Amino acid sequence: MKAVFKEKPAPGAVLKQASEPKPGPNDVLIKIEATSICGTDVHIYTWDAWSQKRIKPPMIFGHECAGKIIELGKNVEAAGKLKLGDKISVETHVYDGSCFQCKQGNPHICENMKIFGVDMNGVFAEYAVVPQQNAWVNDPALPPAVACIQEPFGNAVHTVFEGGAPSGDSAVVLGCGPIGLFAIGILKAIGASHIYAVEPVPVRAEIARKMGATRVFNPKEDYVKEILGATKGKGVGAVLEMSGNGGALQNGFRVLRPAGKLGVLGVFPKDVQLDVTNGIVFKYARVYGINGRRIWGTWEKTRELLTGKKVDVRPVLTHEFKLDDFEKGFAAIAAGEAGKVILKP
Amino acid sequence: MKAVFKEKPAPGAVLKQASEPKPGPNDVLIKIEATSICGTDVHIYTWDAWSQKRIKPPMIFGHECAGKIIELGKNVEAAGKLKLGDKISVETHVYDGSCFQCKQGNPHICENMKIFGVDMNGVFAEYAVVPQQNAWVNDPALPPAVACIQEPFGNAVHTVFEGGAPSGDSAVVLGCGPIGLFAIGILKAIGASHIYAVEPVPVRAEIARKMGATRVFNPKEDYVKEILGATKGKGVGAVLEMSGNGGALQNGFRVLRPAGKLGVLGVFPKDVQLDVTNGIVFKYARVYGINGRRIWGTWEKTRELLTGKKVDVRPVLTHEFKLDDFEKGFAAIAAGEAGKVILKP
Amino acid sequence: MKAVFKEKPAPGAVLKQASEPKPGPNDVLIKIEATSICGTDVHIYTWDAWSQKRIKPPMIFGHECAGKIIELGKNVEAAGKLKLGDKISVETHVYDGSCFQCKQGNPHICENMKIFGVDMNGVFAEYAVVPQQNAWVNDPALPPAVACIQEPFGNAVHTVFEGGAPSGDSAVVLGCGPIGLFAIGILKAIGASHIYAVEPVPVRAEIARKMGATRVFNPKEDYVKEILGATKGKGVGAVLEMSGNGGALQNGFRVLRPAGKLGVLGVFPKDVQLDVTNGIVFKYARVYGINGRRIWGTWEKTRELLTGKKVDVRPVLTHEFKLDDFEKGFAAIAAGEAGKVILKP
Amino acid sequence: MKAVFKEKPAPGAVLKQASEPKPGPNDVLIKIEATSICGTDVHIYTWDAWSQKRIKPPMIFGHECAGKIIELGKNVEAAGKLKLGDKISVETHVYDGSCFQCKQGNPHICENMKIFGVDMNGVFAEYAVVPQQNAWVNDPALPPAVACIQEPFGNAVHTVFEGGAPSGDSAVVLGCGPIGLFAIGILKAIGASHIYAVEPVPVRAEIARKMGATRVFNPKEDYVKEILGATKGKGVGAVLEMSGNGGALQNGFRVLRPAGKLGVLGVFPKDVQLDVTNGIVFKYARVYGINGRRIWGTWEKTRELLTGKKVDVRPVLTHEFKLDDFEKGFAAIAAGEAGKVILKP
Repeated sequence: MKAVFKEKPAPGAVLKQASEPKPGPNDVLIKIEATSICGTDVHIYTWDAWSQKRIKPPMIFGHECAGKIIELGKNVEAAGKLKLGDKISVETHVYDGSCFQCKQGNPHICENMKIFGVDMNGVFAEYAVVPQQNAWVNDPALPPAVACIQEPFGNAVHTVFEGGAPSGDSAVVLGCGPIGLFAIGILKAIGASHIYAVEPVPVRAEIARKMGATRVFNPKEDYVKEILGATKGKGVGAVLEMSGNGGALQNGFRVLRPAGKLGVLGVFPKDVQLDVTNGIVFKYARVYGINGRRIWGTWEKTRELLTGKKVDVRPVLTHEFKLDDFEKGFAAIAAGEAGKVILKP
Repeated sequence: MKAVFKEKPAPGAVLKQASEPKPGPNDVLIKIEATSICGTDVHIYTWDAWSQKRIKPPMIFGHECAGKIIELGKNVEAAGKLKLGDKISVETHVYDGSCFQCKQGNPHICENMKIFGVDMNGVFAEYAVVPQQNAWVNDPALPPAVACIQEPFGNAVHTVFEGGAPSGDSAVVLGCGPIGLFAIGILKAIGASHIYAVEPVPVRAEIARKMGATRVFNPKEDYVKEILGATKGKGVGAVLEMSGNGGALQNGFRVLRPAGKLGVLGVFPKDVQLDVTNGIVFKYARVYGINGRRIWGTWEKTRELLTGKKVDVRPVLTHEFKLDDFEKGFAAIAAGEAGKVILKP
Repeated sequence: MKAVFKEKPAPGAVLKQASEPKPGPNDVLIKIEATSICGTDVHIYTWDAWSQKRIKPPMIFGHECAGKIIELGKNVEAAGKLKLGDKISVETHVYDGSCFQCKQGNPHICENMKIFGVDMNGVFAEYAVVPQQNAWVNDPALPPAVACIQEPFGNAVHTVFEGGAPSGDSAVVLGCGPIGLFAIGILKAIGASHIYAVEPVPVRAEIARKMGATRVFNPKEDYVKEILGATKGKGVGAVLEMSGNGGALQNGFRVLRPAGKLGVLGVFPKDVQLDVTNGIVFKYARVYGINGRRIWGTWEKTRELLTGKKVDVRPVLTHEFKLDDFEKGFAAIAAGEAGKVILKP
Repeated sequence: MKAVFKEKPAPGAVLKQASEPKPGPNDVLIKIEATSICGTDVHIYTWDAWSQKRIKPPMIFGHECAGKIIELGKNVEAAGKLKLGDKISVETHVYDGSCFQCKQGNPHICENMKIFGVDMNGVFAEYAVVPQQNAWVNDPALPPAVACIQEPFGNAVHTVFEGGAPSGDSAVVLGCGPIGLFAIGILKAIGASHIYAVEPVPVRAEIARKMGATRVFNPKEDYVKEILGATKGKGVGAVLEMSGNGGALQNGFRVLRPAGKLGVLGVFPKDVQLDVTNGIVFKYARVYGINGRRIWGTWEKTRELLTGKKVDVRPVLTHEFKLDDFEKGFAAIAAGEAGKVILKP
């Protein structure tokens, strides 16, 4: 089969032939119908500091996918819960099911987590082996390109709902990468009254508007002042930090209404200096770190929002390439012009 | 001024002249712009058993309203928070502010509650005196007929949100009186995936569809079977009981998904026989009695949903009469053909 | 090995020799150190209506246990998470891990639940086979008789904590069987301010006092009046229904403070007539059906409360017999004099 | 009457004669029975930067108190809810009752907050005027010295309970000033399994042990390593930051278990550099800024814990002086040897 390999500990990746993988007893083999490129894949592709520590080439990377089961591992077949022909997507957090956090109902923060497409081969290929416990059966009517973005869409669902969704309230989304854009659509679907977004890239700002943002600010604008003005000085009920930018987080606390919720999904390259006294203590802020997706509660909501067409994600899916042209996909992202990039084998 | 009086301890009411009331030190006087008829008003009008015990004629009844402040009580003026010309609606639960429940943040279930328009004169008149603590200042742009239904709309908001709103999940509304119809609109606004409604009256069933119901069942149908079928046997995530019918409540527990929420706003004329073991215990049900509105949290959400046009209540507002024709309003309700009936002085 | 069999579809049970069972690939084999008798075992023993429908003799019953792993199934050994010599107890709800409820994080209400010791052989024996997913590793220092009551203790933990524990608030426990008695101890440990209990059997009432009950009422007393009096007419913050008696549940709603929580663990032989209007709607009650234990969140709290000696369960463990004398255990329970009865092989 | 005045914009305070104050229409006049010194009073006394901006001398400061009502303002008398002879303490957050936050049920973070004893005269005197809305009626049996520390005790109650109390779980208290010490007692009362405290001052560390701390660390020790070791690398379920020390907060995130709660009551003199990625995002932390007390929910719990003797605060009350000797009280605190200092007129 064709597959995109991180071949060597260096920037780039190569498409080459590989033998079709065999599922272990607790795995399924899927024929890939669509994949999409995550920020993590970009880190692996560009071979940044994180990748150099974590990734062990050669490996097939990529983890967001939609595919069809074509072979069942022995135990999976015996269990009888998944069957040939099932259309699935993959929860990429491969949890052990037995640690303290898994036992508390938090497998998404498993103490012994492995990441699909990072710590094991992934989906930029024609076929992929998926641990059965991580397979999510899709509605067959969901188009593969939509099914495959459920994983990052789930990050947005998780951030919007954790600590309470701001239905009938105002919200700010900081950073309009694909997850931020999905979040805007979800906020609209749950009846947020005003949705402010902050994003420097014009193409993404435009998509943010299509997804339902009331107003989109360029970070060069004094958006703290603007949002406080628009909310009569009160600030917003919910801030969703999806940029990983320290300054954005600082501003997030400034535009947050006292007793409001601030969800942080962004990953920050370094420590952030925070005015804890005014931003958290006196503001009576409720801050939620977000990580992955609730397994499978988040996926249930994701399915309902997507199959019920409560959120139309198509404006976010800006590019689609053949897997052979994966380099065009990474180039589109590098150019800063892309929403979500789909790759199809 | 003209006012509709419950004149005698007997069915009916009369429109007659009365002197314009004077506000006490902690009251405001409003000029009424619109009122609407609540089920409670129907009880008073028809002089049912509850009314015979509670109501002390002669009195002016009615409590759902929108009006403009034209005089301020002495202490209200001194406090400086309300001002002449403010457009207001009225929270009808007149709480004492000092009992245990008020101190716990639950004034809506005050231990010494008085009801505006029931235990004191109300709003079916040209002018009304309103305790300042119960005045809610409206956005001036809100049409009086919409402003005046915020109180029952708030019941629906309260029921939808208490215990968690079913965004991205399915819900059933049992009974499509005005509050049930508002609830359907709110469920749609917060992104419920499927909204099932049960209502015998065709006119109301039709409004339910306009408000966003996925399907509306006549209670003669086997809607338990239908809803279980539509949810693949799982049942729905949220049931909102708004009919006060014991059989509906029993069915509500049958269509509820295990671990789902069941909100009860309906008032039942007699005890209800419940299969507690299967309906609550084994079903791991979460049941929320609902009463009034959170003061003022519910009103904040109500304002956002109405001023932001997340919910369009116009299909529910089926009739509008001059106050002089109040009997036509009660007749429309008695005929079972009405949604909400507006009366304007 | 010796084992207690439900041999025939008739009252009673027999102790007889059986061959030592072999664990399947996903099971472990344990040597039993202690077991205890649950109400469910009494149903099976007396062969009541429920048992006649559910139980398929011949089978070994019993499910509350503590034991030591002496053999690992093939897959269990491969997984490497459980090991020979581990002391374990058993979560008796054998969930499938793949249904909607399991995927929502609610395996304790799995749609395809099987019960250990009911739908498969159990623990009234020298050895037992346990599905590895249901094994809970104990602190080796926990005495077997204490380790084996964690399962019913967990029911009490679940009921106390679900919907919020009444720390610094008052509570009522209706019914002082072993789970009710454990609940009293847990309420004391979490700082409930006043703990009222209702129980007709003097021996149990006495244990209730030892566990920390402020007052214990005989159901013949007008305990509704007494509890309302003791709470200045307000009622208590939490009611825990653990009797399965319809009248007790009705009274539970009467002594519940408005906005209070009522947890229902009791199983009722028939429908209960409830004053929903006053008991739930106007009372703004929050009602939680309780079922099993959160897997494994409840067990974590259970372990902390027991190993940290926050709750001393010894007063509840009134009888201990050799497994050979199991009939004495059932007799003690039938005599209404027992707390928890331990059986040791 | 005698009163302690902040007389001039400079360090120190003076005891002098003043005329007995008269209550306004919405106030009560109390005869002070006991007061205690808060950290805020120390700021005012030492005339730090914050005081220089906020305080307008001359004024009577002090706000923690217990007293007896000896005169009722006109409206208070008319309302009939407070009466002569009532023993009261004071909620020091004087909220306006009409802003957005007050209307949301959050008067403790009122947008127009005034602080009793800071923005208006307080209680270091023989008599004081108290806004009736801020009066909390005490159980007459509560000793004045205990009644007067309910306000800071309430800060601890608020921090322990907000976001869920760690009953049956482990906790860390960072900083053992009086509020930290109260928090330890409360954690013990609600059944926390292990309570770790961090405090440099030996006298306070000793009181921490008396209040129920499992272990008390000197911040010079590597307590992060010790606590992680004691929790088998998992960290604790709840961290309560009560020191206002940036390094302590950083360590708080290090010892927090993933998905754990971190409450921040401490006020930090400057920004804190935080590893948001590892401390909040990947840790899935739930962070709660805490401010004042829930009015009056926190006071209800406070009353139950103190009148029910669930928490014995006496070890914290290290010093008691006559009001005339107030300087000895401030000196004891300055010497770093004090828990709570009581001043009695």
